[in-house]
Amino acid sequence: MRIAIVGAGALGLYYGALLQRSGEDVHFLLRRDYEAIAGNGLKVFSINGDFTLPHVKGYRAPEEIGPMDLVLVGLKTFANSRYEELIRPLVEEGTQILTLQNGLGNEEALATLFGAERIIGGVAFLCSNRGEPGEVHHLGAGRIILGEFLPRDTGRIEELAAMFRQAGVDCRTTDDLKRARWEKLVWNIPFNGLCALLQQPVNLILARDVSRKLVRGIMLEVIAGANAQGLATFIADGYVDDMLEFTDAMGEYKPSMEIDREEGRPLEIAAIFRTPLAYGAREGIAMPRVEMLATLLEQATG
Amino acid sequence: MRIAIVGAGALGLYYGALLQRSGEDVHFLLRRDYEAIAGNGLKVFSINGDFTLPHVKGYRAPEEIGPMDLVLVGLKTFANSRYEELIRPLVEEGTQILTLQNGLGNEEALATLFGAERIIGGVAFLCSNRGEPGEVHHLGAGRIILGEFLPRDTGRIEELAAMFRQAGVDCRTTDDLKRARWEKLVWNIPFNGLCALLQQPVNLILARDVSRKLVRGIMLEVIAGANAQGLATFIADGYVDDMLEFTDAMGEYKPSMEIDREEGRPLEIAAIFRTPLAYGAREGIAMPRVEMLATLLEQATG
Repeated sequence: MRIAIVGAGALGLYYGALLQRSGEDVHFLLRRDYEAIAGNGLKVFSINGDFTLPHVKGYRAPEEIGPMDLVLVGLKTFANSRYEELIRPLVEEGTQILTLQNGLGNEEALATLFGAERIIGGVAFLCSNRGEPGEVHHLGAGRIILGEFLPRDTGRIEELAAMFRQAGVDCRTTDDLKRARWEKLVWNIPFNGLCALLQQPVNLILARDVSRKLVRGIMLEVIAGANAQGLATFIADGYVDDMLEFTDAMGEYKPSMEIDREEGRPLEIAAIFRTPLAYGAREGIAMPRVEMLATLLEQATG
Repeated sequence: MRIAIVGAGALGLYYGALLQRSGEDVHFLLRRDYEAIAGNGLKVFSINGDFTLPHVKGYRAPEEIGPMDLVLVGLKTFANSRYEELIRPLVEEGTQILTLQNGLGNEEALATLFGAERIIGGVAFLCSNRGEPGEVHHLGAGRIILGEFLPRDTGRIEELAAMFRQAGVDCRTTDDLKRARWEKLVWNIPFNGLCALLQQPVNLILARDVSRKLVRGIMLEVIAGANAQGLATFIADGYVDDMLEFTDAMGEYKPSMEIDREEGRPLEIAAIFRTPLAYGAREGIAMPRVEMLATLLEQATG
């Protein structure tokens, strides 16, 4: 399959590398890492085993890539205003667009530009960071859940899931993408938010009882917001315990938003906080702790 | 009147200097500023006019001072565990103890140690900072509201108020000390908390609409907590607007808790946050934003 990786940060580089190693025809749209990857290839340091791709197809502009079968979007959501410029040259009839980005609103924005029928959403549970140029570090997890943006049964997401599994990614499909997106927010909102605000890794947050209680309170607000969105099945409050257990096992992991803050990048506050807050408010659900966290992040970094 | 100042920080030095200038017999218990004040006296830089007291009675230990008519307590509340050691040598029959400290619980703790009948509470609205040793900076306000800890009419707080007014302090009395304490918390909780957490002055917080809205939300929670405490008259929600207007006029003022954080001192989280939260919870009032702010402060500085 001809695949373009748009947004080749930690997520795009990692999944792109796995797909190339598995035999797919992968084209990376690069910026920071262009020189390093063109010269020395891409090194993946992974808990599942390190590997190097000595030859990688790297490009500086989407026009050099041209139309693809699949566009995998891994952009930071604060760069979504560049969708048109970065993705249009990659699209022809039949091109599928898969966004593995964080938060809410990405599929909607892509659908408006490129047509809803192309759009597939993926929720990635991946602990990864960029290292030096030409390197990517996979620290844990990596599971992807794929779902159609428009509810339908084309079989194509099963094919994509099979391709990811072939590449070594734990990948399954869902017929309720919205639920999968909100489930991820149950984790992303408290941990991205608190870790970025306080500039601490997850284990420091979880080490203090009052902060653990706050995480719990934030998660329950997100679950209430989710369950007002007309999901096929509710998210149970017990999901909070699963997420806490999952996070306790991460050690001193820093979520992507905290890395963004450390490195002086904008934060994904719109996609991870403000859009979910707006979707909640639309259904009459107030999320005071979530709103306070969003406001504090804006005030701290604005 | 023989007055001891215990806790000669910005507040204690400022009011003590005014009382001495006015003719009272003031004795300062000093630590950091002892050498400077013994050598060169105390300089007050005030919006109401600068002045210097060339001769100041400074001491290193309360035993050197001995029994007084009035003990004015200006300690940071995180030092309240030193009440016994610092105040006992100053107390004889008839000694009054006036605490101008922040937050809740100070009168109760003093009453337990020294007898409730001695205890007077004062709520100070003072913008002041310490400068170099031997200096204090009065940046704005300065009003004091005095109230008896035990409801009664002894006339003594009127005498104290007259003494403060004689010294140039806008001072009045109240028969509802509890209400006055909570009114001050309506300001202290949002501004001390947010400024210390974000390390920003009040004008930056107020410049952003979402943060202004958060301040408002926090103030309304504190008012709800206050109004559950059996006050003689309720605090109206409109008090929020008064406090915002009052604060807009402050410019880039940094509240004491933010100064404490900058200078690496402990924060007054127990007196300003946790005790009010406990008093609210006792009456069935949840204050989720206040609790979140307390938790974030503890997590940020713990």
